Amino acid sequence: MNFASDNAGPAHPNVIEALSRANEAHVAGYGADELTARVRHRIRHLFEAPEAAVELVATGTAANSLALATLCQPFQTVFCSTTGHIHEDECNAPEFYTGGAKLTLVPGGDKMDAGALRDTIAAEESRGVHGPMRGPVSITQITERGNLYALDEIRALTDVAREYGLPVHLDGARFSNAVVALGCSPAEMTWKAGVDVAVFGGTKNGLMGVEAVIFFDPKAHREFEYRRKRGGHLFSKFRYLAAQMDAYLDADLWHRLAGEANARCAELARGLEGVATLRNRPQGNMIFADMPARAHKALKAAGAEYYLWEGDLEAAGDEDMLTARLVCDWSVSTEDVARFCEIARSA
Amino acid sequence: MNFASDNAGPAHPNVIEALSRANEAHVAGYGADELTARVRHRIRHLFEAPEAAVELVATGTAANSLALATLCQPFQTVFCSTTGHIHEDECNAPEFYTGGAKLTLVPGGDKMDAGALRDTIAAEESRGVHGPMRGPVSITQITERGNLYALDEIRALTDVAREYGLPVHLDGARFSNAVVALGCSPAEMTWKAGVDVAVFGGTKNGLMGVEAVIFFDPKAHREFEYRRKRGGHLFSKFRYLAAQMDAYLDADLWHRLAGEANARCAELARGLEGVATLRNRPQGNMIFADMPARAHKALKAAGAEYYLWEGDLEAAGDEDMLTARLVCDWSVSTEDVARFCEIARSA
Amino acid sequence: MNFASDNAGPAHPNVIEALSRANEAHVAGYGADELTARVRHRIRHLFEAPEAAVELVATGTAANSLALATLCQPFQTVFCSTTGHIHEDECNAPEFYTGGAKLTLVPGGDKMDAGALRDTIAAEESRGVHGPMRGPVSITQITERGNLYALDEIRALTDVAREYGLPVHLDGARFSNAVVALGCSPAEMTWKAGVDVAVFGGTKNGLMGVEAVIFFDPKAHREFEYRRKRGGHLFSKFRYLAAQMDAYLDADLWHRLAGEANARCAELARGLEGVATLRNRPQGNMIFADMPARAHKALKAAGAEYYLWEGDLEAAGDEDMLTARLVCDWSVSTEDVARFCEIARSA
Amino acid sequence: MNFASDNAGPAHPNVIEALSRANEAHVAGYGADELTARVRHRIRHLFEAPEAAVELVATGTAANSLALATLCQPFQTVFCSTTGHIHEDECNAPEFYTGGAKLTLVPGGDKMDAGALRDTIAAEESRGVHGPMRGPVSITQITERGNLYALDEIRALTDVAREYGLPVHLDGARFSNAVVALGCSPAEMTWKAGVDVAVFGGTKNGLMGVEAVIFFDPKAHREFEYRRKRGGHLFSKFRYLAAQMDAYLDADLWHRLAGEANARCAELARGLEGVATLRNRPQGNMIFADMPARAHKALKAAGAEYYLWEGDLEAAGDEDMLTARLVCDWSVSTEDVARFCEIARSA
Repeated sequence: MNFASDNAGPAHPNVIEALSRANEAHVAGYGADELTARVRHRIRHLFEAPEAAVELVATGTAANSLALATLCQPFQTVFCSTTGHIHEDECNAPEFYTGGAKLTLVPGGDKMDAGALRDTIAAEESRGVHGPMRGPVSITQITERGNLYALDEIRALTDVAREYGLPVHLDGARFSNAVVALGCSPAEMTWKAGVDVAVFGGTKNGLMGVEAVIFFDPKAHREFEYRRKRGGHLFSKFRYLAAQMDAYLDADLWHRLAGEANARCAELARGLEGVATLRNRPQGNMIFADMPARAHKALKAAGAEYYLWEGDLEAAGDEDMLTARLVCDWSVSTEDVARFCEIARSA
Repeated sequence: MNFASDNAGPAHPNVIEALSRANEAHVAGYGADELTARVRHRIRHLFEAPEAAVELVATGTAANSLALATLCQPFQTVFCSTTGHIHEDECNAPEFYTGGAKLTLVPGGDKMDAGALRDTIAAEESRGVHGPMRGPVSITQITERGNLYALDEIRALTDVAREYGLPVHLDGARFSNAVVALGCSPAEMTWKAGVDVAVFGGTKNGLMGVEAVIFFDPKAHREFEYRRKRGGHLFSKFRYLAAQMDAYLDADLWHRLAGEANARCAELARGLEGVATLRNRPQGNMIFADMPARAHKALKAAGAEYYLWEGDLEAAGDEDMLTARLVCDWSVSTEDVARFCEIARSA
Repeated sequence: MNFASDNAGPAHPNVIEALSRANEAHVAGYGADELTARVRHRIRHLFEAPEAAVELVATGTAANSLALATLCQPFQTVFCSTTGHIHEDECNAPEFYTGGAKLTLVPGGDKMDAGALRDTIAAEESRGVHGPMRGPVSITQITERGNLYALDEIRALTDVAREYGLPVHLDGARFSNAVVALGCSPAEMTWKAGVDVAVFGGTKNGLMGVEAVIFFDPKAHREFEYRRKRGGHLFSKFRYLAAQMDAYLDADLWHRLAGEANARCAELARGLEGVATLRNRPQGNMIFADMPARAHKALKAAGAEYYLWEGDLEAAGDEDMLTARLVCDWSVSTEDVARFCEIARSA
Repeated sequence: MNFASDNAGPAHPNVIEALSRANEAHVAGYGADELTARVRHRIRHLFEAPEAAVELVATGTAANSLALATLCQPFQTVFCSTTGHIHEDECNAPEFYTGGAKLTLVPGGDKMDAGALRDTIAAEESRGVHGPMRGPVSITQITERGNLYALDEIRALTDVAREYGLPVHLDGARFSNAVVALGCSPAEMTWKAGVDVAVFGGTKNGLMGVEAVIFFDPKAHREFEYRRKRGGHLFSKFRYLAAQMDAYLDADLWHRLAGEANARCAELARGLEGVATLRNRPQGNMIFADMPARAHKALKAAGAEYYLWEGDLEAAGDEDMLTARLVCDWSVSTEDVARFCEIARSA
């Protein structure tokens, strides 16, 4: 019973098999091999973007920071949510890769609101060179609190960006979970909705560690390649990134695994009805559930792993409510979900 | 017949098997898993350095740049060879990770000479704050031109660094090839010779992509962890780095594979006697061989892959000498070496 | 009638005279001259800090950013107010000089509250290396909204910093105005209150452009010198910075000029009673006054210069309230203040 | 008798008078004043470049580094001489301002040779993204060793840059000395010779501290303004920079002062004939003279100030030759020169 994170589960067996298959003979390094070329082609096809530039890196932080660095000058600022992964969870990586740009947090909830974004952008640069120049807008889909932007919500944000001539970055660490939840295509959630650069994440969805960065306008591609190299993110044995992504694309594994994760999360939410109060309805593979301490204690005693988001279990009385973050990765079983809910309910 | 690079060959099958074994169940992310702890312990043991801090990253550029960033302030300079990988082949990554430090090239050959190093260090800082402050000394073992420092040569360099109170970094992308060639222990080539931070490379020697960074004085460890995260080099599914390194340590795979590579290189050198003039005697797994154009043409026609280091094969007459860089990775076979030499000789 | 900014007025004539006097003969460059040594000594004396390291730079942004860079690692975060000059008005200079550190804004008003600071610091680093490491606390005295920290308020903030082992920077662009307003000594407002590095500003108070940076613990001094040089802020003809500061110290010019500015601001506040609503009581040399549009129009028509902080004069009806930022520099005359108030009242 | 540096002498009295005149009333800050506008216009006129963007900063390091930062991406490299001020004397400021670009030193003498520049540029980028991308060419006129590029030599260098599509920066700390020595116009030495961005230095030639940066193609102007602000180099009381430059332009003060300095240097060279061997003929205001230790001792005893470039006077025998760097600033008198030569000759 592990709901700790979507990086706690194993990679899908197909991924290991793909690595094994790719592990034959000598091939050119640094992404000059045929498998990488093929994977690039397949992603362009999947995104209905024949002109797009596609590159692979091994971590989400690298994907986001390198993408932002090509969109944002050091004297600019990135507009993002107060809970954006790029703000909260990357230890200043965007500041590092952009050469010292700022992140301007758009006030409001976890999801950026188009009106709040417009106000924030409008306020910036009112002081000329004293404040930073306006830079890209960064959207996290699905958010770090498990919330999903509808397509028209993404469009509303990119429309605001477009008003000010600003590019849009989509942090898609949970890209596939969002596509499944929205029942849309990758293209619909990205360039058709006004996104300029998207991260198509694999690490949280069954790969060992690969993210694709997709530039719908390929002109920043060369710069990205140089920045990736100087960031130490150009793998010499590139085939092992490509092989993972190839397996991910085969028979829509990316879509299937996200579908499993989302489905487990929905089951979990249903199973916790009556015992937990959810802070958000399940929209992807992550919920935040307020449960009484006795439920937490029973679950922890039974070996359940998850992140206690708020509250101090040691200090809490049995009826005190504490918040669990519960994340389902593709490998969580229906049985584990059922058992988790059963224990919580029994407590 | 591929002698293009030690990153062109496959990973050793044990490595894929280790990944497969590690791909079970849920485990803690970001290096908090048991396998990672075990690997750290094993490396400390291998290096006879129970206090050392050990971290893993996926690329050599990350390993070197992150290590240097903990040793070098932005207003300092790194002393290295004119052919150092950190200077020639990392697209300003050390400058990036250190926040804009300089690299001061020690004149002379591919291997730094202790006297030249002392003169270079002495000359720096003669202008007070107008030039950079002196920073770390970085040694590449084996060098990018295939040359090996003897233990007393390393000691002579670290003694000079010590005179000036400067720390020493060892870029060990080909660490194992050097240990095999010197017939010494990892400890003898590092802390016993005065090295403060060493990179124990795996990527060029049969892993998919893992390098260990070893701080013999662990006080910089915490800083390294933050810098790794903000560089985007902290893998969430860390077990897959650890598993590779674990396989590398099992039954001294690292030593055996380097031994194979070095042995093939020695065979290659012997086999080319009479047809090629070697610029360096084989000291690890890389030689630079001057051969007539007709030999190159015959080899290329037969499908041999290697890097034409100097010369223009299109423009060359049959007897013109052109330089091949020939690298043997662990997977090169004795048969391939023999065939390569045979073709060169026949031409 | 110019209340636009304390950088709009002229330098005090003594400053020009001091430049003229210093403009004799050849002297050593880069701060190695006797006048600079004397000025350093005088500042140490003024601050009752015989061990302090004292350096001069020409702008406030340089002073703050260089000071913060010596206190803050690139993977750390600076804690400051939402209205801190370092956040709002330096175009990412702290991010630039620190090599990409973050600024964490302490929620609440313009003045940081000790409780809010503690909560903010406590929350940071709860995610290990995923968020930045805690770095320095930066206090702006007097704030960008004209508010003054009492000595015990500064002490409360530095006590919180001390709890967490964090250093404290004081941005003293309006240092002298604060000392006058508090009726305290420079030492009482700095090291006696727990400040580690203070900026003693001159530019906003009658100099052409000089700020002193004072390290009460001098160990960061050498680093500061290198960072200043690489920031392009080491003046070769350093005597002209020193001469200005020398004049500033003579007969407590710094104190007298700030006293004049504060007194004019108090007169202005009194004179606007009945016609304007002040957002803050006058605590230094800056107030924010809500006045009806007709008053603004009359003032602008009469040639008064000031910053319309909030509101759109073109669009406003006569009775609409708009906010003026009114800053008195040392050179503003009692007559100008009276005339300004008279016009506002008559409107 | 001070030949230590062109920053050791005083500012010209006209400069102090100009400051005094500018020190009246309130004016807009940050370069929005009329005097600054006028100075920009005058420089455009002087350079016959009506479209150029002109900005002022207070130090040469700021001027060079900010200019280079607008021309050079962090993943690029700057081509410059082994003795370039930007390499030797700015403590990594170009690396800092560009965000970690490299400086590639063109082998050869103090003056870059067009052939050597072409070879160096051609060699760079041969390794794709492994080495840095090619960036701007930076020329120091007059060089740090006192050597002057002829107009056709500058043109030859800029032609090479043009071949590769690279922009050209001219470090003109001693711009005026060069124009006087060449008998050319500012336009002829800059845009007419293929220079894209020039620094028109004032600090070493009679100002307190002002350098103009001139972008002949103004499109980088806005970026420069942001970068200047975030570097802390935007003066709030900008009029004091403008006033100095205004005085510099009046009646060609810049040309007259450089003429004086160059003339003194020529007199010095002539006066030392027989007693010193010059390493370079006087081409501007700086020579390097080998003189016997006894001459040095007599000069030092008589209070002469200059930089002993090579040699150890303490350890030297009377006839040992040691090198003096002798710099004439505009304020050095014919009498001082004569006395210096007389003492040297008598020794």
